[in-house]
Amino acid sequence: MYKVFGDMLSGNCYKVKLLMQFLSIPHEWVPVDILAKETHTADFQGMNPNARIPVVVLAPDQYLWESNAILNYFADGTDFLPQDKFARAKVLQWQFFEQYSHEPYIATARYINKYLGLPKERAAEYHDKQVGGHKALAVMDKHLADHQFFLGTQVTIADISLYAYTHVADEGGFELSDYSHIQRWFKDFEDIPGYIKMSRKNA
Amino acid sequence: MYKVFGDMLSGNCYKVKLLMQFLSIPHEWVPVDILAKETHTADFQGMNPNARIPVVVLAPDQYLWESNAILNYFADGTDFLPQDKFARAKVLQWQFFEQYSHEPYIATARYINKYLGLPKERAAEYHDKQVGGHKALAVMDKHLADHQFFLGTQVTIADISLYAYTHVADEGGFELSDYSHIQRWFKDFEDIPGYIKMSRKNA
Repeated sequence: MYKVFGDMLSGNCYKVKLLMQFLSIPHEWVPVDILAKETHTADFQGMNPNARIPVVVLAPDQYLWESNAILNYFADGTDFLPQDKFARAKVLQWQFFEQYSHEPYIATARYINKYLGLPKERAAEYHDKQVGGHKALAVMDKHLADHQFFLGTQVTIADISLYAYTHVADEGGFELSDYSHIQRWFKDFEDIPGYIKMSRKNA
Repeated sequence: MYKVFGDMLSGNCYKVKLLMQFLSIPHEWVPVDILAKETHTADFQGMNPNARIPVVVLAPDQYLWESNAILNYFADGTDFLPQDKFARAKVLQWQFFEQYSHEPYIATARYINKYLGLPKERAAEYHDKQVGGHKALAVMDKHLADHQFFLGTQVTIADISLYAYTHVADEGGFELSDYSHIQRWFKDFEDIPGYIKMSRKNA
């Protein structure tokens, strides 16, 4: 059985949990506390030298890290990752958009606010993050105006990647009510059989 | 013939150029000036709503953006992207590492220093970037101590993704002489047939 090292309240880890639920992949969830620096032990860095969660153990001494790489691995051969070459590249395009233009703003603002309690010395950074976050949300909302899911009518791992931090963006100070297409997409995504909420009790 | 919108001095665009050289893919390079905000026109955002280079035109009205997604598209079916499912996921793992843990530090420090001339108001940010950049370089150097290329003896698009900004990291203030395995990897990479330097006259 696969072992997943992660924290269900991290969007990057929740992505892996969602796909495993949708595909009914048996796995053991091993909770990791990043605030207690559990990713900085020698054992953990033997799995991921970059000291981040999630990490999946595929076989003895066979580790895979980076949430979106893990999604591609498990989705390969399923409806969550198309076979068509251009469609696969478009899935990756949205996943790289998520890691570069979305997560560093929305997830970081959420981290500063929810995990750290918005300390004064990070207030300026928190406010700067709002600009980039709203830019990413606007790109998504415009695309979703005429696409049910990111690749069209079929849900893919691009949706999982973008849903993870977008649906809790309010915890980073992002008011989402003006993004009507994102709201509609939330509902369609949450109707997928196997969907579970981001909660430690679901890990 | 494919059109590539980019700037050869951007590592993200140079990645696409390198792969196209290695694979002898005919293409037309269309120079884009980001400092003159040429990515912010309505025409450009019709291709990429996220207003970034590179963008590749695959067919009329068929656009692909995000450098690493473009590399996966063109490398598919070639020796630069393995067929094995785990190896493909490892390629993606290193590419997501590049976009999240490497590029935002090394490329941004280079941008502040080389393009903007290290203005006083960005000096603190520039110095902060050094810490994250050296952390990424250390992860790479350790891995390259016992791997010729990132996936082993076969060069892949993971190497292209990581080479692009690493080989000009000195322009962002990163002294590379202590990273002996990265230095060795540079030499092996630069021996690949078709290799060209990052220079606008090569675009």
